Amino acid sequence: MTEFDLIHRLTLNLPTNESVVIGAGDDCAVLDVGAGEQLLLLKTDAVVEGIHFTGETAPEKIGRKALARCLSDIAAMAGTPTAALVTIGLPRKFDVAFVEKIYAGLNALARQYGVAIVGGETTTNPERMLISISLIGFVPRGKVLLRSGAKAGDAIFVTGELGGALAGRHLDFEPRLAEARWLAANFSVHALMDLSDGLAGDLRHILKASGVGAELLKRAIPVSRAAKQIAKRGDAAKPAVVAALTDGEDFELLFTVASRLAVPLLDGWKKEFPKLRLSCIGKIIAGEGLRLRDGTGIRPLNAHGYVHFS
Amino acid sequence: MTEFDLIHRLTLNLPTNESVVIGAGDDCAVLDVGAGEQLLLLKTDAVVEGIHFTGETAPEKIGRKALARCLSDIAAMAGTPTAALVTIGLPRKFDVAFVEKIYAGLNALARQYGVAIVGGETTTNPERMLISISLIGFVPRGKVLLRSGAKAGDAIFVTGELGGALAGRHLDFEPRLAEARWLAANFSVHALMDLSDGLAGDLRHILKASGVGAELLKRAIPVSRAAKQIAKRGDAAKPAVVAALTDGEDFELLFTVASRLAVPLLDGWKKEFPKLRLSCIGKIIAGEGLRLRDGTGIRPLNAHGYVHFS
Repeated sequence: MTEFDLIHRLTLNLPTNESVVIGAGDDCAVLDVGAGEQLLLLKTDAVVEGIHFTGETAPEKIGRKALARCLSDIAAMAGTPTAALVTIGLPRKFDVAFVEKIYAGLNALARQYGVAIVGGETTTNPERMLISISLIGFVPRGKVLLRSGAKAGDAIFVTGELGGALAGRHLDFEPRLAEARWLAANFSVHALMDLSDGLAGDLRHILKASGVGAELLKRAIPVSRAAKQIAKRGDAAKPAVVAALTDGEDFELLFTVASRLAVPLLDGWKKEFPKLRLSCIGKIIAGEGLRLRDGTGIRPLNAHGYVHFS
Repeated sequence: MTEFDLIHRLTLNLPTNESVVIGAGDDCAVLDVGAGEQLLLLKTDAVVEGIHFTGETAPEKIGRKALARCLSDIAAMAGTPTAALVTIGLPRKFDVAFVEKIYAGLNALARQYGVAIVGGETTTNPERMLISISLIGFVPRGKVLLRSGAKAGDAIFVTGELGGALAGRHLDFEPRLAEARWLAANFSVHALMDLSDGLAGDLRHILKASGVGAELLKRAIPVSRAAKQIAKRGDAAKPAVVAALTDGEDFELLFTVASRLAVPLLDGWKKEFPKLRLSCIGKIIAGEGLRLRDGTGIRPLNAHGYVHFS
């Protein structure tokens, strides 16, 4: 059973009430809490020692990453983050200065984005450190962007460059908060999410939620310098473009708009965010499935995002 | 360094913003999110295998306890819970049916209190299971009850019976949500919190936050049957009344009101909650420190809540 199968089973028939706009299944939960034109966003995300960071990771970067991942999920709803709680699971013996540095990294990023840290708790997790962030934010009613709105004919866009994030960028990425809000304010974006598990796998969430398929153009995939460098090594596990399709932790935005908006969007983006690449990487098609087109033809991408190149 | 010293250091100079009404340090964070007369409550709490439950605990009760602890913190602010996220850290090998039963226990309690479960995440925590709940709720502006309002002369009250909760009640307790809302609606309660670390230790949080001291009356402390039974054993570590003062996980309400309200409060309580004991256990005094009065005189309770009986 995969993680997604387990989550599917656990999220059947969850308790609900009249405040719920969007429950489990999108980047954040969305609640109508009577805050005028604003809807509440709610998200939780954990990083675990040995999985999301190592014993060698600088503590400031651990704290930064823990919060940045949650901020990226608020961006994925085109929202604005407000306040967070920090849960930290500590081994029985720990270095107080190390924990303070985790908080220093987390607090610095919170200040950068105007997020209040309003408490949390410490608990014991004997074998390894664990940091879980609970974050709330808000999004104007009518501007929330879900995974479920992609339509056949849409152009598919991705920000930044993909692949090889574990070489360093997973600790330093900027959540695309301003970019997502600009998109929601200026264009009729049909579907939006952030990339955490890899482009090919994450795009499938949009396709499934929207009931459509997609065709990606291989030469349009923006491959990061890190992915290219890793692919040049003798022991490289996969070509750079496969890394861009399947590596996790990019935390870029993936979204779709009607194809007639593709050119005005690219023009507007260049003026607004001249330093951040925006790539049109393919199109949404009727039916289902995810396919990759290159110079020789079209081939399917499999369920885990991996391409079996012959 | 104790847990409280660490938390004190970590919560100095946390990032804040204009939404924050109460940050770290009370039972929940309180935020003004523009929801009319309602303030948002935000709380997170984790239970960890081997610490808050064992490998032998029934999974439904693990899930129930994880949520009930957070609900008790909403009660401690006189609030109403709205929605929760569930973060579950799973060992590399786990039994899917066991995890589903954890959710079944959690969902049943959520339905009982009208709480929506709106998502969360699964992550890997290789050595042991961990469940962290993020809960939001609301409380009317002006009705939120903090730890910091106790005044010299106040009568101190506690609901239920204390001590010995780890013998079973820690898995079955009812969060005192209706009781706390009734108190806030009908009486000028000065300070309120829920008991999680033991009466003597938790009362110190009210005393410190309020800048006052307290004197408890030994014979007024409501001692649970479980604490009495444990104290009768040959290997009992402490007398029953000491267990009632120092055992954790009672999840009862501890609060103070002006002494002139003590009798009307007890009368009103008996009519409203005839099945739940309410005890006046002592009084708030000027100055600082926590003392226990018995037939032979007054003695101090030390910092960890333990009484050194001679």
